[in-house]
Amino acid sequence: MTTQAAMSNTLSKSYIEVRKQSEELCKPLITEDYVVQTMPDVSPPKWHLAHTSWFFETFILAPYLENYRRFNEPFNDLFNSYYNGVGNPYPRPKRGFLTRPSVDEVFHYRSHVDQYMGELSQKLDRHPKSRLIQKLTQLGINHEQQHQELLLTDIKHIFAQNPLFPVYSQHAAESPPFGHVPLFWTRFPGGEAEIGHVGDGFSFDNELPRHRVILNDYSLTNRLVTNREYKQFIDDGGYSNPLLWLSDGWATVQNQSWAAPLYWLKQDDHWQVVTLGGLKPLNPNEPVCHISYYEADAFATWCGKRLPSETEWEHAAGHSKTVSGNFVESGFFHPKPAESGNSLQQLFGDVWEWTRSAYTPYPEYRPAEGAIGEYNGKFMCNQMVLRGGSCATPKNHIRKTYRNFFYPHNRWQFMGFRLASDQ
Amino acid sequence: MTTQAAMSNTLSKSYIEVRKQSEELCKPLITEDYVVQTMPDVSPPKWHLAHTSWFFETFILAPYLENYRRFNEPFNDLFNSYYNGVGNPYPRPKRGFLTRPSVDEVFHYRSHVDQYMGELSQKLDRHPKSRLIQKLTQLGINHEQQHQELLLTDIKHIFAQNPLFPVYSQHAAESPPFGHVPLFWTRFPGGEAEIGHVGDGFSFDNELPRHRVILNDYSLTNRLVTNREYKQFIDDGGYSNPLLWLSDGWATVQNQSWAAPLYWLKQDDHWQVVTLGGLKPLNPNEPVCHISYYEADAFATWCGKRLPSETEWEHAAGHSKTVSGNFVESGFFHPKPAESGNSLQQLFGDVWEWTRSAYTPYPEYRPAEGAIGEYNGKFMCNQMVLRGGSCATPKNHIRKTYRNFFYPHNRWQFMGFRLASDQ
Amino acid sequence: MTTQAAMSNTLSKSYIEVRKQSEELCKPLITEDYVVQTMPDVSPPKWHLAHTSWFFETFILAPYLENYRRFNEPFNDLFNSYYNGVGNPYPRPKRGFLTRPSVDEVFHYRSHVDQYMGELSQKLDRHPKSRLIQKLTQLGINHEQQHQELLLTDIKHIFAQNPLFPVYSQHAAESPPFGHVPLFWTRFPGGEAEIGHVGDGFSFDNELPRHRVILNDYSLTNRLVTNREYKQFIDDGGYSNPLLWLSDGWATVQNQSWAAPLYWLKQDDHWQVVTLGGLKPLNPNEPVCHISYYEADAFATWCGKRLPSETEWEHAAGHSKTVSGNFVESGFFHPKPAESGNSLQQLFGDVWEWTRSAYTPYPEYRPAEGAIGEYNGKFMCNQMVLRGGSCATPKNHIRKTYRNFFYPHNRWQFMGFRLASDQ
Amino acid sequence: MTTQAAMSNTLSKSYIEVRKQSEELCKPLITEDYVVQTMPDVSPPKWHLAHTSWFFETFILAPYLENYRRFNEPFNDLFNSYYNGVGNPYPRPKRGFLTRPSVDEVFHYRSHVDQYMGELSQKLDRHPKSRLIQKLTQLGINHEQQHQELLLTDIKHIFAQNPLFPVYSQHAAESPPFGHVPLFWTRFPGGEAEIGHVGDGFSFDNELPRHRVILNDYSLTNRLVTNREYKQFIDDGGYSNPLLWLSDGWATVQNQSWAAPLYWLKQDDHWQVVTLGGLKPLNPNEPVCHISYYEADAFATWCGKRLPSETEWEHAAGHSKTVSGNFVESGFFHPKPAESGNSLQQLFGDVWEWTRSAYTPYPEYRPAEGAIGEYNGKFMCNQMVLRGGSCATPKNHIRKTYRNFFYPHNRWQFMGFRLASDQ
Repeated sequence: MTTQAAMSNTLSKSYIEVRKQSEELCKPLITEDYVVQTMPDVSPPKWHLAHTSWFFETFILAPYLENYRRFNEPFNDLFNSYYNGVGNPYPRPKRGFLTRPSVDEVFHYRSHVDQYMGELSQKLDRHPKSRLIQKLTQLGINHEQQHQELLLTDIKHIFAQNPLFPVYSQHAAESPPFGHVPLFWTRFPGGEAEIGHVGDGFSFDNELPRHRVILNDYSLTNRLVTNREYKQFIDDGGYSNPLLWLSDGWATVQNQSWAAPLYWLKQDDHWQVVTLGGLKPLNPNEPVCHISYYEADAFATWCGKRLPSETEWEHAAGHSKTVSGNFVESGFFHPKPAESGNSLQQLFGDVWEWTRSAYTPYPEYRPAEGAIGEYNGKFMCNQMVLRGGSCATPKNHIRKTYRNFFYPHNRWQFMGFRLASDQ
Repeated sequence: MTTQAAMSNTLSKSYIEVRKQSEELCKPLITEDYVVQTMPDVSPPKWHLAHTSWFFETFILAPYLENYRRFNEPFNDLFNSYYNGVGNPYPRPKRGFLTRPSVDEVFHYRSHVDQYMGELSQKLDRHPKSRLIQKLTQLGINHEQQHQELLLTDIKHIFAQNPLFPVYSQHAAESPPFGHVPLFWTRFPGGEAEIGHVGDGFSFDNELPRHRVILNDYSLTNRLVTNREYKQFIDDGGYSNPLLWLSDGWATVQNQSWAAPLYWLKQDDHWQVVTLGGLKPLNPNEPVCHISYYEADAFATWCGKRLPSETEWEHAAGHSKTVSGNFVESGFFHPKPAESGNSLQQLFGDVWEWTRSAYTPYPEYRPAEGAIGEYNGKFMCNQMVLRGGSCATPKNHIRKTYRNFFYPHNRWQFMGFRLASDQ
Repeated sequence: MTTQAAMSNTLSKSYIEVRKQSEELCKPLITEDYVVQTMPDVSPPKWHLAHTSWFFETFILAPYLENYRRFNEPFNDLFNSYYNGVGNPYPRPKRGFLTRPSVDEVFHYRSHVDQYMGELSQKLDRHPKSRLIQKLTQLGINHEQQHQELLLTDIKHIFAQNPLFPVYSQHAAESPPFGHVPLFWTRFPGGEAEIGHVGDGFSFDNELPRHRVILNDYSLTNRLVTNREYKQFIDDGGYSNPLLWLSDGWATVQNQSWAAPLYWLKQDDHWQVVTLGGLKPLNPNEPVCHISYYEADAFATWCGKRLPSETEWEHAAGHSKTVSGNFVESGFFHPKPAESGNSLQQLFGDVWEWTRSAYTPYPEYRPAEGAIGEYNGKFMCNQMVLRGGSCATPKNHIRKTYRNFFYPHNRWQFMGFRLASDQ
Repeated sequence: MTTQAAMSNTLSKSYIEVRKQSEELCKPLITEDYVVQTMPDVSPPKWHLAHTSWFFETFILAPYLENYRRFNEPFNDLFNSYYNGVGNPYPRPKRGFLTRPSVDEVFHYRSHVDQYMGELSQKLDRHPKSRLIQKLTQLGINHEQQHQELLLTDIKHIFAQNPLFPVYSQHAAESPPFGHVPLFWTRFPGGEAEIGHVGDGFSFDNELPRHRVILNDYSLTNRLVTNREYKQFIDDGGYSNPLLWLSDGWATVQNQSWAAPLYWLKQDDHWQVVTLGGLKPLNPNEPVCHISYYEADAFATWCGKRLPSETEWEHAAGHSKTVSGNFVESGFFHPKPAESGNSLQQLFGDVWEWTRSAYTPYPEYRPAEGAIGEYNGKFMCNQMVLRGGSCATPKNHIRKTYRNFFYPHNRWQFMGFRLASDQ
């Protein structure tokens, strides 16, 4: 077996596993759950299943598998998310209008794509574009993993609108044993450093090129900010003091009547939280979650600190050997309290950490040629970088150079933060 | 058997038939079709099935059947449409967010309600409130029939948003044999008349009390305005000439970029129409349908005529002996062309006819006591009266005194019009 | 002097007086007050002065005075309100963007138009269209009187947005001597009646044709509903009880966060009211004012009564010989408390009275030919009729057949109501 | 004379000059021009004159001049822009509702503040807080210069809404003699550099602290992008090709129906441009102006280049000795064509240059203590940095380290751009 063949073999296995995992995550759903859309940011689960298949069909099968026939022509637009280069995407806010194709048909669509991806994989050795196909397959796999995370956050949003508070998994957010862990600061000396992806492994284009940066000395906290701490901010009038907020943040607080994180509900003067395990009492030791950048920033201002930059975060993460944490594989589907100890923890998993860094291109960044170039580059405006993955992220999907990005007002992802300081 | 018992027997039969018919109308649906909401006016089919059951449960079973236990407490609010007197209705624009209860559970809910309605019916003879219960049952039956019509118009709206244009029934809108029928005017002498419901049969409160009115001489056309005629209005620049429109109508045309009736689609310079039988070529001889009051009024202005008042319509309809026409029972689910002849036709069925009458209370109108009083009275502002039923109306639901009402900008019902004239 | 000449003479005098009165009403303004627009419904005072001149220029001078040259071509569109038949009206919500022409130039425009109207008046005897010109002049005069009322209500709205609460007139709303007047009901027997304008005097087209109607017996209160009574409605939770409101009314209350009439301000637990004399303590005996149709209707429901129909109002007003009341000439610019006594009073002046009648055409109504036909007819949808004039109406402008109309959510006119009952 | 006294003397002179200049810029206005607001971003000229006085009154006179009495208490809130720390700012979108205070009174307000600033200046030598007062005075002077620029851009926006296209100055945008200047690229070697303000002179807090950065090699064009070049982008379908746009940019193009820069008007197939000298034919050699970040970025993508980072811009500007260019003092009030030659020009004046840099804090940035701390820091989110000043900027106000910032969709400032490249 050649190296190339071995790699291709690994890729095939990885393809099969990831594709299976998407369907695994949908096991707890009933047909009705697959169809609806509760805000423009949310997509129906059915749509995620179809769109990830569309990605392989559009960027790999259609151009590179000879005689391939699309499963259904209208799907070309229906399940195109935002790639203007390959058709007219069906309007995003209307994804929840599509009762057809049925869930069953979407699963057939998946099988169809899988079958032909298998066929292509057989022919890969002799294919003139084999390298490109492998690269695109790897991209498609990572793309599907991103949608696995969205599947969970979108299901959570859908269930949270329902006064019946459906349960996705009985084991989700089952109260863990950990107690309160004191805050501790780690000091990192500044200087010149390098950030960005390096090596042969997969990365998205926005992690490139690796480049030198200059860092001042900085400190980070050992763990994420907790519900207990965030509740103190609330109780201290955090949501009614404009001096703590960014100007756009304060406008959002007032327009949206925000007074607590998304999914916090006050019942009889006690805070409850919507989780994928249903409605539960607020656990004070858990990392605060489902807050916007504005809220994270206001909290930091309130306690005289700041958020880390993405450079600082990546630099600090460089000191940790492995990527370990509370990922989707734990089946907990909820951030967990920190373990005791002063060392830097919770960098990976639990919640995506807001950084103070705007999502902009690295020096000499170039998006890929063609429609695939729309993947990341066109979003490099108005969004903030988040780092480290969450309890909904597949473990083998994350890296320390990974740059996630959302608008500063977004809250429906598993989002939290850690404090930083110049001192 | 007493008269009372016979009546109650008839009512039971009627209850059973109507309940069954709602489910019959849902036969062509797949689970996914039951869940979504494509605009705030539209409700998911599942919601209609549940809400009509909620009506019997809330207004009859809960108060009058001893020891009755609600099927599921949260349904009290979830399936309350707008009765503020009996709870907090779940927000209308969010009905499409509810993936649970499942469709199956909604059908169980229906069975549950039907079972206890049967039980109550058995005890009705000896029930101290038997007359009231009978009245409310009759109201609930008529209420469910109204939702049967909404089921069809809402399904049509849902299917119309989907580029796959699903088919509800293969027999719907199959091309009928009739050809072009010339327009003919019938003259009605004015004078004093009576309008409003009379007699023992059921009517809604808004048809009462019967009262005297004064009518001028007027004329009506023998048939409804057709697609052919309406297309002439379009081709003559009707949608771009502000002088033809009511002020609010012109504002709506511009805001909504209206250029044709709802469900008309131009493909390769030919008009297609979305029907419950799928996308079909426009039939010029069919009554124009899915137009707003504004459009009907603008058309009438364009040809120097006007719309009839509801008084004129009811007065004219008084001359026709029976209520016959193209109703839901035809299974055609679409308006049909007129039959040849000069006589007044299409008064009933096909399309609801816009009148120039604002929906206001009849003199000395009083809404019912209690929450049931919210049924009609609170909508007597900003809406216009429509008469005669449509191809989605159950035949035994309609009467010549029946007053339907919608906002002048609404288009998603089977709505059309007939011309009137002072001359 | 011929009759025709005498009539023309009277008309000229009337023209001069009304034109002068518009400018008189602007005397208290400073230049800055003339320019701004605080909501789309409001027009800058400068605009009213120009638009009323535009009306004479466009409908009389331009077509009928030989060799007339427009004062300034762009004014044709700038000061066209909504007559699509004679140009492209400048967008209404942007009237407050026009700093030019200056106020001075607008006054020159008025002089220019007045001069040529004078010239035309000299030639009127020999003009082939003299009758038409006289009719249009009369219409223009009445049109300008309508804008005099709007001038006052728009200035009030502008001043009310300003925390400095500017005073339009020191004498406005100076506390009058009258005390509390008990409510008393007058019974009117029903039967056949006639409503609509009759005789040679001026009326708008919407008051025609006079026609027969049938009335049931009804009762009206001797006076308008007062602030004291309305405050009881508020204190009883009127604004938070959905069962009292029309469906659209309740939606408006919630969207707009209404909790009191427009211009009521609570300071240190006492109600203050914005008047054209500045901010004043609420006078409990004054008629409640600046309320919407929704609020009037909710109040009536709250106390088990209803609003009168416009037919009832006109029928009842037919019993009063003269049109007298608190009009603009009083210089009070605010509704006054009722005088003691049981007899029907406050029918004219003080506040426009909401009726339960939708603004629809009278039987066989025909709008005028040409652009003037846009005056009234195109608004006959979605609005409600108000009767009787207000403290901002010129006395010789009002009649018992006069139909004013506004949307049910409008509040910035001097609007109030009187109760009616079937009993 | 002590150094301190001399400095204070210079500051006084500078204060007097800048205050006078604000009023000088208003000379061409008539009273009506001072009052209106044509969008939330725009403030009425009167408001700028008052707000800049409020700044001195609130941050200097009120706290540091003994026995100072405010000119008018309500002005505290009325003319507070966004300083939540010192009151409740009157809502920004309603600034155009304030007809009072009159323009005259605002000028009195200015005199009042100037008089007491003079008095304080006399006592400054002996004042315990003299250094702080000097610093705040310098800030106030620079603040007023910023509003001088806004005065011009806001007047331009107001005039541009008016079909009469008023002229601010006859000499504005008078056609200059320069012709087409070819594009030329200058290469800058990368490496380590320092950016940020240094030295004793005034700077805003957002220019601090000076810090090291790493730069790759880069190239900049000798001059700004011109109307000729931008028109080619338009003619090539730039506004209808989504592949050229950032995602948020494309959404904005569609929502706003953008098809050209702000103030470009097509008349009879020729482009006209609104200038402060009235409507003029488009000059192809002038820098393109009044475009958003989105448009600048799309243009750069279209021609395979990019925008410079603010670091690159400042680094390149470091090579030019002096700050010279087309500033407000030229009385041209419009960008001018480049002069011939290959050297780097137009860095200062003409138009603010969009950079690709998000407006974020420099490392270890700290906003000032107290309400003054709201000046810059709270806007460090969602905005982009612009550099170099414009034809509306006072010459002595600008520096190479100066960071201006606006939202990427803003267009009403004098905004343009220059191309950069990695090669």
